[in-house]
Amino acid sequence: MSLTSSTPGDSARSASLAARSLAILPVSARNDALTSIHDALQQNKVQILEANARDMALATQASKDGNLSASLVKRLDLSRPGKYEDMLQGILDVRSLPDPIGQVSLRTLLDDGLELERVSCPIGVLLIIFEARPEVIANIAALAIKSGNAAILKGGKESTQSFSAVSKIISEALEGTAVPNAAIQLVITRDVIDELLQLDRYIDLVIPRGGNELVRYVKEHTRIPVLGHADGLCSVYLHKDADQETSKRVVIDSKCDYPAACNAAETLLVHEDVLQTVVPSVVEALQSKGVSVLCDAKSKEVLSANLPAASAALLQDASETDYDTEFLDLKIAIKTVPSLGQTTSTTVVNGHTNTPTTSPDASLDLAISHINAHSSGHTDCIVTQNKEAAEYFMSAVDSAGVYWNASTRFADGMRYGFGTEVGISTNKIHSRGPVGLEGLTIYKYKIRGNGQAAADYGAGKKAYKHESLAL
Amino acid sequence: MSLTSSTPGDSARSASLAARSLAILPVSARNDALTSIHDALQQNKVQILEANARDMALATQASKDGNLSASLVKRLDLSRPGKYEDMLQGILDVRSLPDPIGQVSLRTLLDDGLELERVSCPIGVLLIIFEARPEVIANIAALAIKSGNAAILKGGKESTQSFSAVSKIISEALEGTAVPNAAIQLVITRDVIDELLQLDRYIDLVIPRGGNELVRYVKEHTRIPVLGHADGLCSVYLHKDADQETSKRVVIDSKCDYPAACNAAETLLVHEDVLQTVVPSVVEALQSKGVSVLCDAKSKEVLSANLPAASAALLQDASETDYDTEFLDLKIAIKTVPSLGQTTSTTVVNGHTNTPTTSPDASLDLAISHINAHSSGHTDCIVTQNKEAAEYFMSAVDSAGVYWNASTRFADGMRYGFGTEVGISTNKIHSRGPVGLEGLTIYKYKIRGNGQAAADYGAGKKAYKHESLAL
Repeated sequence: MSLTSSTPGDSARSASLAARSLAILPVSARNDALTSIHDALQQNKVQILEANARDMALATQASKDGNLSASLVKRLDLSRPGKYEDMLQGILDVRSLPDPIGQVSLRTLLDDGLELERVSCPIGVLLIIFEARPEVIANIAALAIKSGNAAILKGGKESTQSFSAVSKIISEALEGTAVPNAAIQLVITRDVIDELLQLDRYIDLVIPRGGNELVRYVKEHTRIPVLGHADGLCSVYLHKDADQETSKRVVIDSKCDYPAACNAAETLLVHEDVLQTVVPSVVEALQSKGVSVLCDAKSKEVLSANLPAASAALLQDASETDYDTEFLDLKIAIKTVPSLGQTTSTTVVNGHTNTPTTSPDASLDLAISHINAHSSGHTDCIVTQNKEAAEYFMSAVDSAGVYWNASTRFADGMRYGFGTEVGISTNKIHSRGPVGLEGLTIYKYKIRGNGQAAADYGAGKKAYKHESLAL
Repeated sequence: MSLTSSTPGDSARSASLAARSLAILPVSARNDALTSIHDALQQNKVQILEANARDMALATQASKDGNLSASLVKRLDLSRPGKYEDMLQGILDVRSLPDPIGQVSLRTLLDDGLELERVSCPIGVLLIIFEARPEVIANIAALAIKSGNAAILKGGKESTQSFSAVSKIISEALEGTAVPNAAIQLVITRDVIDELLQLDRYIDLVIPRGGNELVRYVKEHTRIPVLGHADGLCSVYLHKDADQETSKRVVIDSKCDYPAACNAAETLLVHEDVLQTVVPSVVEALQSKGVSVLCDAKSKEVLSANLPAASAALLQDASETDYDTEFLDLKIAIKTVPSLGQTTSTTVVNGHTNTPTTSPDASLDLAISHINAHSSGHTDCIVTQNKEAAEYFMSAVDSAGVYWNASTRFADGMRYGFGTEVGISTNKIHSRGPVGLEGLTIYKYKIRGNGQAAADYGAGKKAYKHESLAL
């Protein structure tokens, strides 16, 4: 890793060259580099925490002066119990994952002596822009090296001292390895983001890790593909047969486990039939956790009549814009889905996934339409006892995560078993949902022949065999 | 299909809604729609060819007046022998391909009763912009329907009559099927491309099929991901041990089979050692096919001394820019790779792909560097008898197609066995090389649980099982 003060163009160019060497390193060499980084960060903990303390002192003062949020100061703190060890463990976790590079996903015999093979390979150069959390630099460096990609890292100014210290250690650690120094670069010069975003000649993918504002800014200012999500507007829908306890557990966890996260629920859709039965105790549970509950007219009317007076008094009115708002706070907007009853159409079952392809229930269609119109395509959940309704919901809702009776908070690379993630994508191409090592790869097609010409094939000439070969 | 004169915004919005219905249709319903389209186009051949003849009359006149290229007129002609039948067969070929939707690519037991599944699904709404070839509309409609995507088609003005006739027939054919009419729309109003390119809210992917100028324009004017290639600058490299006959066959086919295609070779790299032996007969063969051969100083000197005088007299000088030029014509630029001999480093073999990860030859590295700096990442080929050199080349060249002893002209969806293609991508994300049905899909993650909360997992609490399940 180099701590660079060179121009963005020079950084990107050297990263692009380094990516060529990194792309052909065997996994043993890439894993060795991760071991070196891990060991060096372990040995230099004191030095790095001292640098982090200097960032913390400035940030704490800025927070006192009202210029920085308390949550940002908290995210900046590397000395919190377990945080440094988690960072170190994350590197080892990535090291132990299977090699994502060189995986063959297709082999076809085009003709005798003419074989086609599709093999995974790195994307090239990643530009990763992130805000305060200094441990991210180690995770991202580990993911980039493991997947054979070069990375240019641009951190937030609040963590300058921490970033510089970590990157100096990583740089020294890489010296003795086969990974070229320019493969991982930390850009510390300020105000270079715009310039970096123009370098589509060298940079293949931008991954902004930070708040909505950062992601939106990046998406607006570059031609380079951007991987990430600007919004995380997740919903939970309680269907007409939703179980009481399941509803409570799923809604409480989705909303309250970590309200500032992108996978927290913001909208609670409720079928009219459960407004009197299931919803009151869900609302009481939410209120007991300090959640403000915003209601549409119907739910407010029914809930007011079915809640203790003190609880009813806390209900607020939801406006239409609340259903398009990512609160990132202890706040949830309830919307009632009117009871319309069964549809009369026959259910066709899709051979592959056992998915009903016509709706079993007209109300369910209303809930799905609401979600497809208002959610951000991140993660949406249905609570129901009815398998057919659940499968239809999961098939028809166009989101990266579609859950049945499980908290939206499970949308996370570690929880999915990916080891770690570079972020969660709401893109419709390449990679969707939590993005781990696999999302940092693409593939190339290799053909091995013995002098074949395409002109020899076609009508009246040789025919292709197109025989699938074992992988 | 609707032949729409509504605003681009209305078209895109209705396509987006239609995409929701199309996405959950079973494959039988999607295949039935393809059958209907095929049968209707077969029955109405006379009517469509009459419309095509009207386009042809205008185009032929425009060509005579010097306002339209003869090759465009040729591409416009649907009455050429076999062309209409190929179009019909293409629809049946797509119908017979396996369903790309609902394919499960990952299943993980997160915990007892908590299962994660990754399932392929359509991308959503495609915007396909193409130039003259009227048969493309049927192919693209077939690919879109089969993959569950809605498509907005914008054709070139030269084929307005043909497009309108085809789309009217397709529209009527879809009436009796489960595919919503708005799922396939032909936009005939002129000058709407800019407006369509702004509709990233409704359109998920743009596929421009046409010349470089069109693709480049689209890439410059939209935030929607673009799938395609602006350039097809392919190279063939004759290594020091290249076989005479193999070299000749690969170079001639790569250059001459169809010089205007994106997968035709434009640059011929030659190792200094074969300049006297192999290259002269390759150059003579090229010249006999009418190819202009542009040489660097070294190759011109050696070839001039080793070719018959008449052939030598035809050699031209290459300038540096010729190695960055996609001639799309009977023209090729030769560049000599100096002989530097073996490298001394040991070859490490990568476990997965048997790929040498250090270079077996310093000249080979020069050839690879030239290609990585000048090719467009489309398709590049090495001719060699040496397996190690070939595998290293295929690993180190960063292109969608990397071939050993086979013509670059094999870069094609039909030839790869994909049935057909929507285009060839030089993107570094999502889909690379010839893009068939699979490239028109993405996936979603489904979780099926029974009320699990993420807060119940973690240090000192429940642990994830992360057990891979059979697909």
